[in-house]
Amino acid sequence: MTSAPDRAPDRAPDRADGRAAAALPLRPELAGLEPYGAPQLDVPVLLNVNENPYAPSEQVVADVAAAVAEAARGLNRYPDRDFVALRTDLADYLATESGVRLDPAQVWAANGSNEIMLHVLQAFGGPGRTALSFAPTYSMYPEYARDTSTAWVVGRRSEDFSIDPEHARAAIAEHAPSVVLLASPNNPTGTALPAGTVRVVLDAAARVPGGCVVVVDEAYGEFRRTGTPSALELLAEHPHLAVSRTMSKAFGLAGARVGYLAASTALVDALRVVRLPYHLSAVTQAVARAALAHAPELMAQVGSLREERDGLVAWLRARGFVACDSDANFVLFGTFDDRQAVWQGLLDRGVLVRVTGPEGWLRVSVGTPAETAAFRAALVEVTGR
Amino acid sequence: MTSAPDRAPDRAPDRADGRAAAALPLRPELAGLEPYGAPQLDVPVLLNVNENPYAPSEQVVADVAAAVAEAARGLNRYPDRDFVALRTDLADYLATESGVRLDPAQVWAANGSNEIMLHVLQAFGGPGRTALSFAPTYSMYPEYARDTSTAWVVGRRSEDFSIDPEHARAAIAEHAPSVVLLASPNNPTGTALPAGTVRVVLDAAARVPGGCVVVVDEAYGEFRRTGTPSALELLAEHPHLAVSRTMSKAFGLAGARVGYLAASTALVDALRVVRLPYHLSAVTQAVARAALAHAPELMAQVGSLREERDGLVAWLRARGFVACDSDANFVLFGTFDDRQAVWQGLLDRGVLVRVTGPEGWLRVSVGTPAETAAFRAALVEVTGR
Repeated sequence: MTSAPDRAPDRAPDRADGRAAAALPLRPELAGLEPYGAPQLDVPVLLNVNENPYAPSEQVVADVAAAVAEAARGLNRYPDRDFVALRTDLADYLATESGVRLDPAQVWAANGSNEIMLHVLQAFGGPGRTALSFAPTYSMYPEYARDTSTAWVVGRRSEDFSIDPEHARAAIAEHAPSVVLLASPNNPTGTALPAGTVRVVLDAAARVPGGCVVVVDEAYGEFRRTGTPSALELLAEHPHLAVSRTMSKAFGLAGARVGYLAASTALVDALRVVRLPYHLSAVTQAVARAALAHAPELMAQVGSLREERDGLVAWLRARGFVACDSDANFVLFGTFDDRQAVWQGLLDRGVLVRVTGPEGWLRVSVGTPAETAAFRAALVEVTGR
Repeated sequence: MTSAPDRAPDRAPDRADGRAAAALPLRPELAGLEPYGAPQLDVPVLLNVNENPYAPSEQVVADVAAAVAEAARGLNRYPDRDFVALRTDLADYLATESGVRLDPAQVWAANGSNEIMLHVLQAFGGPGRTALSFAPTYSMYPEYARDTSTAWVVGRRSEDFSIDPEHARAAIAEHAPSVVLLASPNNPTGTALPAGTVRVVLDAAARVPGGCVVVVDEAYGEFRRTGTPSALELLAEHPHLAVSRTMSKAFGLAGARVGYLAASTALVDALRVVRLPYHLSAVTQAVARAALAHAPELMAQVGSLREERDGLVAWLRARGFVACDSDANFVLFGTFDDRQAVWQGLLDRGVLVRVTGPEGWLRVSVGTPAETAAFRAALVEVTGR
């Protein structure tokens, strides 16, 4: 237990009454840290946090409002702790999207995939345990580990940002993690994992003494290219596999904070023990269900974003940039001797992208055709290509 | 790391392909636990979880729906991570309710007080640290400690459920907790703490090497009787004090999941580091703000619930029961040789109360006058008094 008095900017000096202001017992590993998050800037073209550029249609807005009005009539009561209706709707949606039919008891939901990951690490990680991933990958993963006092280790992705199965097997054998996190498609690279790689990881995880849960994070799963499999297809045979999804991206509901997960009933039951009671509000449940009823319309939008993405990758390459193959709604591109300067140049022209990934790369979200055009024009100006 | 194979009810037997199903690495302290929560039964008179019996008015419903429709138009974007508008509204509300004016930077909010407590223990508790409370008290506290791997110790409340200041001082000196949780009014006893007791705890906490945060949980604060102080009044002098509140009870918004906390800016800044980014949805922010705009109307309801409660306490005592003084929207009463039988007898008559608190006691929430009448009639029938 260490005090961290220099983390208390408004700490008062000793008082007239003679008592010293108490130090706050901030955990030492948090000292000096800033809250996580990309800069929230007011810029015309926002292509920095992989949001869906399409606002909900007026019909979706109306249905969401009607569903919330209905829920609001009973807001004095606690919500359904097990949100059975929402889990049923999510299972139905996954069956349509991936062809994999799950029981609603195999589905879990929370306030964003963030909270899903927290539940997983609270149940299966924690003090004395290790979580493993392969870098470069989603920058929140080490924060989930830190927040649950889980040790954090990373293997490496190959030059092309894939994961070498033999390296993965060796890393799992060496570190004996209780949780492996695999983003597929990976953020920030856009790289999806072949089923064969996931199977090798699952097999290696099954050999970890004490057990190991493998989470395939498919936050961007709906954007995968034709022929790219979903790890949902592996669920039936692997009770230690969990596949996480979100309504933030394909459904264009980042503001509603709905993440979910599919796994064996036993795995979901473990998450039920660590969830805070009533973690998912009646309003969130209502909003998610109203949006899910519009899945066909929203999935059509996903189709046009995928085309826009493929066009952007092709354009970047034609202009002489390196652009990663992407199964997501963003593209990692480069490489630049001074990526910060390119980022700033784009921002000066009203286009916000993200400085993330290995040195030299930038990440751009796929926007509307007009937003992508603005990005292309700005990039040409900034780089002179 | 211990495997817990008997916690996996759907664990498949060895398969035809010769691979054994993997064990899930459930944390050993979670093995065999059931998810927390009171039974959710379909009963005419629900007086078991201290909900506000009054549903939102049609005007509140309409304003909530309109606010959500407005928010829904931008749901494809992430919400304001720092929810500045909501924090401003909450600070304004607290100023009106308690007379204590705070800066919005001194206010924090989350998905229920549950998540508020999680943030506090993530920032200031955790492995190697201890949280302390005084029993009998809110049964979720040890779960928050468990979820954050914080050691959990309890001192005792006196016979009348107050806290003896000298006992509190000694317990804090002995256990050197980094977090002390004080419910006031206390759940399930209804007991509010005098300012003097809170001051003694704050002083003792200030002497803990490394620092100690004191959380006064005022979930039921608005129901306190005239003359009972709020710990908000002590904030200005105590940077290691946090006062938590909720919109679930007085505002009748249990289904919306909005808890909040007031403290020094330094303390709130520590919570900002451990919160998951975008933890509070744009919809939740909109719902809370719409309800806060109706604070005067909702506070009038609180007044009638307080009268109903005082009447219930008087009636119970007149009938020869013991009923605790209550500053909350519930009453702990008894004592019964077989409280389970009384609970069942009430349930058989369509009235659901809660088996909680020390042996022999039951807790009943304050309902509408009609609900309270139904409770009284059922209790007379069941006990023959």
